[in-house]
Amino acid sequence: MAGMEIKLEELKARLREVNDLNSAGAVLYWDQATYMPPGGAEARGRQMATLARIAQEKFTAPDVGRLIDDLLPYAGSLPPDSDDGCLIRAADREYRKAVRVPADFLAVFSEHSALSYQVWTEARPADDFRRVLPLLEKTLDLSRRLADFFPGYDHIADPLIDFSDYGMKAGTVRKVFGELKEQLVPLVRAAASREAADDSCLKGHFPKERQLAFGKTVIGTFGYDFARGRQDLTHHPFETRFSVGDVRITTRIDEGNFAYGFFSTTHESGHALYEQGVDPALEGTLLAEGTSSGVHESQSRTWENLVSRSLPFWEHFYPKLQKVFPDRLETVPLETFYRAVNRVEPSLIRTEADELTYNLHVMIRFELELRMLEGSLEVKDLPEAWNAAYLENLGIAPEDDADGCMQDVHWFGGHIGGAFQGYTLGNILSAQFFAEARKSLPEIHDDMRRGNFAGLHGWLRENIYRHGSKFTAPELIERVTGRGLDIGPYIRYLREKYGKLYGPGI
Amino acid sequence: MAGMEIKLEELKARLREVNDLNSAGAVLYWDQATYMPPGGAEARGRQMATLARIAQEKFTAPDVGRLIDDLLPYAGSLPPDSDDGCLIRAADREYRKAVRVPADFLAVFSEHSALSYQVWTEARPADDFRRVLPLLEKTLDLSRRLADFFPGYDHIADPLIDFSDYGMKAGTVRKVFGELKEQLVPLVRAAASREAADDSCLKGHFPKERQLAFGKTVIGTFGYDFARGRQDLTHHPFETRFSVGDVRITTRIDEGNFAYGFFSTTHESGHALYEQGVDPALEGTLLAEGTSSGVHESQSRTWENLVSRSLPFWEHFYPKLQKVFPDRLETVPLETFYRAVNRVEPSLIRTEADELTYNLHVMIRFELELRMLEGSLEVKDLPEAWNAAYLENLGIAPEDDADGCMQDVHWFGGHIGGAFQGYTLGNILSAQFFAEARKSLPEIHDDMRRGNFAGLHGWLRENIYRHGSKFTAPELIERVTGRGLDIGPYIRYLREKYGKLYGPGI
Repeated sequence: MAGMEIKLEELKARLREVNDLNSAGAVLYWDQATYMPPGGAEARGRQMATLARIAQEKFTAPDVGRLIDDLLPYAGSLPPDSDDGCLIRAADREYRKAVRVPADFLAVFSEHSALSYQVWTEARPADDFRRVLPLLEKTLDLSRRLADFFPGYDHIADPLIDFSDYGMKAGTVRKVFGELKEQLVPLVRAAASREAADDSCLKGHFPKERQLAFGKTVIGTFGYDFARGRQDLTHHPFETRFSVGDVRITTRIDEGNFAYGFFSTTHESGHALYEQGVDPALEGTLLAEGTSSGVHESQSRTWENLVSRSLPFWEHFYPKLQKVFPDRLETVPLETFYRAVNRVEPSLIRTEADELTYNLHVMIRFELELRMLEGSLEVKDLPEAWNAAYLENLGIAPEDDADGCMQDVHWFGGHIGGAFQGYTLGNILSAQFFAEARKSLPEIHDDMRRGNFAGLHGWLRENIYRHGSKFTAPELIERVTGRGLDIGPYIRYLREKYGKLYGPGI
Repeated sequence: MAGMEIKLEELKARLREVNDLNSAGAVLYWDQATYMPPGGAEARGRQMATLARIAQEKFTAPDVGRLIDDLLPYAGSLPPDSDDGCLIRAADREYRKAVRVPADFLAVFSEHSALSYQVWTEARPADDFRRVLPLLEKTLDLSRRLADFFPGYDHIADPLIDFSDYGMKAGTVRKVFGELKEQLVPLVRAAASREAADDSCLKGHFPKERQLAFGKTVIGTFGYDFARGRQDLTHHPFETRFSVGDVRITTRIDEGNFAYGFFSTTHESGHALYEQGVDPALEGTLLAEGTSSGVHESQSRTWENLVSRSLPFWEHFYPKLQKVFPDRLETVPLETFYRAVNRVEPSLIRTEADELTYNLHVMIRFELELRMLEGSLEVKDLPEAWNAAYLENLGIAPEDDADGCMQDVHWFGGHIGGAFQGYTLGNILSAQFFAEARKSLPEIHDDMRRGNFAGLHGWLRENIYRHGSKFTAPELIERVTGRGLDIGPYIRYLREKYGKLYGPGI
């Protein structure tokens, strides 16, 4: 197999080159969002497009395909979880997808997305849906054409969902979402019938520097390594990875509301713990990142919700937080604060929604995406359909499109289809993985009460993080939990938590 | 010529791609120096090497050469200062240079340089010349081989000098430096025979934030556009350009010494004013940057020395500075402060040297480079030769190699040859250009006294900055001054300034 090893080294060198171009693009994006002066915008767009184009050209070069073809039998001869075998199979999967989409089409789509995003940033504050309408219609048309490069699908959204959540199809997701909704709606109704928790203790003046310092202390305790990352301020929070040794997060601080910056910090830290936990041996290959949108989101939601919205977490950290903001919190009891950060209330904005209603926001978007792609909903009718869906599912409707169908960037800066399901899949998986962790770590909540997260972090690193993308999401879920995606643990988690908060009947 | 226009657009697209890769590399370098966490270092080196390699491969592709060959006659048919004609000729010049150096050789040299730089960062503080010796010997060997890809030179340093100062040769520079030294040495001796100015007012505690704010105000007044740039902190100050709309500078603040951060800020702002002043029509081409090391340095030295070490400048800014640091400067008269920032004293460190002695530091290095390349000085004998040269030229010698031949990064992170002459060429040119500007702007010093730098900035932009690299340095100097490089204005400037400071006899 000596010849195979030479070919494997050659493949790795080619993939490393693609990885380096993509990582450079990520640095340019991060800089654009954090420190770039306004004058840099025009050239920066061009530079990022150049890097993306060259990366695509290098990856889809025919000799890369030949290397992969030559190596596939060798991959089959290796143990199923060998790094090299997984790499060859992942390269094959990605290569076969990438070569189907012509570079010219990608360039057109990418240019259109940049324009659409730019217009959206102006049209949303102006509540001007008519201005984005023709662009969104073109996005839908291009999204359909993108899907059509992958014929043989059951539903036209399938190829688009597959990009972010490999192995998932519209039908599967619809079924899971349907089951989940059936369980969720009574919980939401029951909670809504009670008086909402008083969250006034989260409002007031929380100085930025102290918010940032407290957030850094918390995520440092989780295991986020500041020697291999950093936190900066951006308009929209995100996590980004330049290498296993450089995984950064950003946040936005609202001095008038403690919850916003804090939970976005623990959310992004969850994404980052995943990426920082990848085995360094995978660095520079396409396996050195999280495996799917849903699994990635499961980790951000684990650290944001299952950990940092839990009572044991606050039993440890609340006395510390009170010392940071004594004028705001000294006289507020733990119980009041805990209820405040878990206040349930149907609302209009997904990113600010509570745990119970959050998934309804996602399901609304997912269903609207499918209907637009199917052709059963015209783009011009989107605002009306959006508002109707909110009224039906959450009992309220937005007064304008800015806080309605224009609130999320996804459709305006990328494609329609596959953009949202990962959020709810992530919620489901977060509870499924956590339940599995508890089997090995029965004292997990006592540990949290003592401010010790090493057990949980270690378990996640060992079972999920270190593998990067070695396994597809379905393979990983099966490895970790011994079964497929299962909404049971999530429903049990919600019932237990919100039952205690809102009393019997939930 | 319609066919030519198509070929020209194709050439521009190819060059823009190379430009984008190099700009991305510059962003990665900037990030490495400013915000990158330590864990990012290893992958970052690899990523920057990948970008540099792909840029080199793209630029030296044979079809780029054919495009240039096809377009050269067309360039000849255009007016001599047409953007397109200049672009084609510059591309031809750079292409012919680039294709002579094999990619494999460049990769070896680049890897060696990175290693050598890494070892130097540790060996310099440890004063361990023996540790860098074998690396420096290899650097010399590789530098000689690099020069030998350009046969037909008069002196082996000529091709290396030509990289940074096009059109210059060792012989020309040696002659100019000889003439300059003949004039400089009596000035230095005369100044040294007087009591050095008291610069204690520059020492003490100058809080970082206030230093930064004052520096920003000053360079903003010069015309540095913060909407198209920014300033950050790094260990070594530098200027970098990602596009005409994004030209950044960095500085290092020493809270115990006002001069260090302030003059490094005005120095880097000079480089940045040059790059910000390039005609936006040249963006994305290889003409959108300063034309040579010497001309670039002339602009940093103009704003650092001819402007911000001048008496009219401080007549305007000193009262403001006193208000920023009242506890340090309230009782210090302008005259004392002005003498302090122009204190002349032979010293060991180039970057901290005064205007009069600075060029002697440069000449010592330039001559040692030539002797190593010629083979008349062995690398192992460099420390001894360095110390002897300092004793001969400045009357003092370093006590160790850390502040001796290991003080500058140039030989340890790049090649030997061509690294230093630009600093003194820049000093000479700064005065030559400034004398020319004064002909059009006789009231230039009165303007400075009023805090008005628009006239000077406008003149430099019109005559130098906007052209970017359209003209080679010799062409530009001829265009601007009607003659070649001339030490006369520089000597007259120094005599006048230091004659006033140190009395008759200078």
